Amino acid sequence: MARTTGSDGEKTEAAIREAAVNLIARLGYEAMSMRQLAAEVGVQAAALYRYFPTKEDLLFTLMREHMEGLIGVWNAARPATADPAGRLAAYVENHIAFHIERRHATHVSNMELRSLSHDRLTRILRMRTAYEKELRAILRDGAEAGVFSVEDTGLTAMAVIQMMTGVIVWFRPGERLSISEVTATYLSMTMRLVGAEAHGASTTYSTVRGFGRAKDAVAL
Amino acid sequence: MARTTGSDGEKTEAAIREAAVNLIARLGYEAMSMRQLAAEVGVQAAALYRYFPTKEDLLFTLMREHMEGLIGVWNAARPATADPAGRLAAYVENHIAFHIERRHATHVSNMELRSLSHDRLTRILRMRTAYEKELRAILRDGAEAGVFSVEDTGLTAMAVIQMMTGVIVWFRPGERLSISEVTATYLSMTMRLVGAEAHGASTTYSTVRGFGRAKDAVAL
Repeated sequence: MARTTGSDGEKTEAAIREAAVNLIARLGYEAMSMRQLAAEVGVQAAALYRYFPTKEDLLFTLMREHMEGLIGVWNAARPATADPAGRLAAYVENHIAFHIERRHATHVSNMELRSLSHDRLTRILRMRTAYEKELRAILRDGAEAGVFSVEDTGLTAMAVIQMMTGVIVWFRPGERLSISEVTATYLSMTMRLVGAEAHGASTTYSTVRGFGRAKDAVAL
Repeated sequence: MARTTGSDGEKTEAAIREAAVNLIARLGYEAMSMRQLAAEVGVQAAALYRYFPTKEDLLFTLMREHMEGLIGVWNAARPATADPAGRLAAYVENHIAFHIERRHATHVSNMELRSLSHDRLTRILRMRTAYEKELRAILRDGAEAGVFSVEDTGLTAMAVIQMMTGVIVWFRPGERLSISEVTATYLSMTMRLVGAEAHGASTTYSTVRGFGRAKDAVAL
């Protein structure tokens, strides 16, 4: 049975995006040519330009969709609770789950910002700021409620995000630790980093999202 | 007065390295050509090849010297004390001080590993492992002495290093915080992350290296 043109088009576009993410992660954006990408996908270069009129359109699409995806899953995962420790646990769990499955896309999103035009860079940075602001709000609420110890909300948010995103540098599925073991350990480290343990919040956060404490979960 | 050939040569080589770090950080290694680099330095391309016979020789030299520099300053800064909190404080302080002054070189060292030959990649990774091993030893000693809470020494070492190196992404001199304020805040976060505060080590580490507590140092 013949497929509709629409679905073929969508498949081609998805194949282009996937190949582009892998090729840019391997070579770097500046070094990748649209000709190479077309060869990788198995289409003519002209076909590529139907979907992405310029190479930068392609890069921007990859970065925008990465951030839209991250903000989308967080909006879906954001807990109804007002409890800062529960919200922080949800943020950590969501952030690690999203990035650990998107190693190359994360690499591209973090490394190739230099190649976006000013306007598009501003749009991506606004999306990032909105996402980071959610974490800053959780940290501020926790500090104001006296359940977190945070010297500087902005620095702590950056530290927590960079520590978590760093997982993609070394984590490989099927090695020593599972995703849930890694997440549980990072959750414990984050809770201590924000001083939540010192305030007796540890029992709250460790049950809210169904995680056991890392000490129990990780086989050392 | 005429300079010796040697010192001119050294100056040229240093100029090449500095221009290369900045150019690779801006364009990516694959995208940078030796011709561009020569133009940036203001020499003929042939002159470049006298110092670095291949482009990869240049990249490897940049990465090797970056790691030798980091290990060198740590060897000089490593405290005589056996106290894990004091050693951890020294490691954090040294790591941030080194990287915050070498934003582009750090970026190149982290991002362009993919472009090294297998043997050279192995040599750089061995140097990194040796440096990270120092941190793992401090964490292990602290956990064994009962002054740190660490679920997984390897994961904690990666988390602490990535959190600290992440400073180069957002820190710019002359903005809201000074280097010593940033370092003090990261030191507090690291100490909490490894559970040192819960064991009463906070007064020790905050005086060992002459840092005040971040709460006092940072204007919020």
